[in-house]
Amino acid sequence: MYAVIMAGGKGTRFWPLSREKRPKHLLNMTGEKSIIQYTVDRISPLVAQDRILIVTGASHADQIREQLPQIPSENILVEPVGRNTAPCIGLAAMHIRKKEPDAVMCVLPADHLIQDTEPFLASLIAARDMAEKRACLVTIGVRPRWAETGYGYMERGQTADTIGDTKIYQVKSFREKPDRATAESFLKSGKFFWNSGIFVWKVSTLLDTIENLLPDLHEGLCAIGESIRTDREMRALSEVYRRIEPVSIDYGVMEKASDVVMLEGDFGWNDIGSWDALWDVLGKDAKGNVARGRVLRSGTSNCLVHSPDKMVALVGVEDLLVVETDDALLVCRRGASQDVRKVVEHLEKKGMKEYL
Amino acid sequence: MYAVIMAGGKGTRFWPLSREKRPKHLLNMTGEKSIIQYTVDRISPLVAQDRILIVTGASHADQIREQLPQIPSENILVEPVGRNTAPCIGLAAMHIRKKEPDAVMCVLPADHLIQDTEPFLASLIAARDMAEKRACLVTIGVRPRWAETGYGYMERGQTADTIGDTKIYQVKSFREKPDRATAESFLKSGKFFWNSGIFVWKVSTLLDTIENLLPDLHEGLCAIGESIRTDREMRALSEVYRRIEPVSIDYGVMEKASDVVMLEGDFGWNDIGSWDALWDVLGKDAKGNVARGRVLRSGTSNCLVHSPDKMVALVGVEDLLVVETDDALLVCRRGASQDVRKVVEHLEKKGMKEYL
Repeated sequence: MYAVIMAGGKGTRFWPLSREKRPKHLLNMTGEKSIIQYTVDRISPLVAQDRILIVTGASHADQIREQLPQIPSENILVEPVGRNTAPCIGLAAMHIRKKEPDAVMCVLPADHLIQDTEPFLASLIAARDMAEKRACLVTIGVRPRWAETGYGYMERGQTADTIGDTKIYQVKSFREKPDRATAESFLKSGKFFWNSGIFVWKVSTLLDTIENLLPDLHEGLCAIGESIRTDREMRALSEVYRRIEPVSIDYGVMEKASDVVMLEGDFGWNDIGSWDALWDVLGKDAKGNVARGRVLRSGTSNCLVHSPDKMVALVGVEDLLVVETDDALLVCRRGASQDVRKVVEHLEKKGMKEYL
Repeated sequence: MYAVIMAGGKGTRFWPLSREKRPKHLLNMTGEKSIIQYTVDRISPLVAQDRILIVTGASHADQIREQLPQIPSENILVEPVGRNTAPCIGLAAMHIRKKEPDAVMCVLPADHLIQDTEPFLASLIAARDMAEKRACLVTIGVRPRWAETGYGYMERGQTADTIGDTKIYQVKSFREKPDRATAESFLKSGKFFWNSGIFVWKVSTLLDTIENLLPDLHEGLCAIGESIRTDREMRALSEVYRRIEPVSIDYGVMEKASDVVMLEGDFGWNDIGSWDALWDVLGKDAKGNVARGRVLRSGTSNCLVHSPDKMVALVGVEDLLVVETDDALLVCRRGASQDVRKVVEHLEKKGMKEYL
């Protein structure tokens, strides 16, 4: 199996730690390594390192090469411009097809947190076996733990197959980020699952589906495919990316494809999309505090502090997210970290580029 | 008139901005200048600069000379060790007596805030005239604006005299920092006034009173006085200070002296003893925020931010004191800033001297 790690995210939700040049997946936020390093480590028992491909943008490619020296340099695919996830995944598929047309590939976002590696790998193995058994698109659904409005959902349909002990279901429908009431009803129904953004399929199944549903993209990908490892490659990539429409794999492919199946993954998945989500998943002390750096606390509870360099004293505060970097400080109420994007928008509007 | 500015405070309550080497009065917290610079500016229309004396410790003398180049260097009196306010004021009195034995001196803390200069100077003039008229100790009381438990109080007695339009009262008693209930009763009674720490008297009146009440201190001061402007001066100062007992002017002199009078001062006095007090006195925006530095706010109210160098973003927070310095960050609930001393105590206990 090949693994394709999508590393195109901007991660403005982790401002001021994440920046345009330092997106979330390149940051060390949960432990000793960066999130993409953990992503690669996690898949390594199952996928050889020369079969791990990483798709990213030009501004992050060097950092990715530095952080992941074990990945062959030609496996770092650099998109000339972001065109959302369908072209990104299609590009990786063309590279894999060039080497092994019958391969199965799994697609993994670079910036998700997965706490339990063994069940994660077991799910991927089951998904791979299913993808080999039948030309379908396999997704992994996560049973919702709360009524999250920031995730996409999948509706589980009837049983499609069984791989070992793992049941495989048809996906009845995809749902975009729901409103609060809809999310509550999803949670109650027991039939809706978080879309983890993890996909498994044969390269040929994906490319056939793209040919059906997104013929212009397919044509572009074929043009790129023919140029791979020739001196036309850079120009072809640049020309195709300039003209193709941005489209997500969810909207462009998954929602419209005829044979999409899912299995239920239970491996501590979290897309840690905000400082609040990070506080949720990290280990806390008896008073609910999470601290990175030298932090003195007096009468303080349920706070997250990220300040690797500067000593921080918290006095009589609760439910705060405090993030200190070289040039900026964020102090945010816990529960309000979705509004961090407002700060980033403001910085953009005011042209304060040094902080972006 | 001479002015004696007491600049011996440590100001740990303004950690992390104030430090052992950078006490509160040397900091720029309220505007363009440091608090001691404002203190000198304020008195300057009334007292010539060569009649302004500043008493401080060795570790701050250089900074004071730098901040106040207009004050003659010999007017910066350096105590070899802190012995509280009575020796400090007595030392200055000996220096003034050497030049003008009949002079009147006013004593001013270096680190108080006074918002209205004209009524302040008018009060000093009335106090000076009273001190010249009769050999009494003159204090300035401030009508309490709330039931403060952090200040000393004076109980107003019967009318003693009138200077121009200003009534002078006997002080019936001094009261140390009261508990909450007592402070409430003081506030209600209308007869108790905050002790501003501002005193006016003839040098001879003070020294006579010290001779009566603190004979050991008087003897020591005389020994110092005889050595002033001789080559024995440093040694005499050092020897006397080593042996004299620390004692405050309030406890050692004012509470026991027979003829203490007060006038009511109304000039926006505040000893700004904490970050909370600073928030109280500074001008705020419509949402109650005070900001020094580049501060972005989203859904934020009643906060104080001091961050001259680093950009700060506040998101969805209220009632916070945020103080950013080169090496430390404080985030404190508004109303809890008295607990900042706990942080300082902890740093002392842990031997983290670089932060003190």
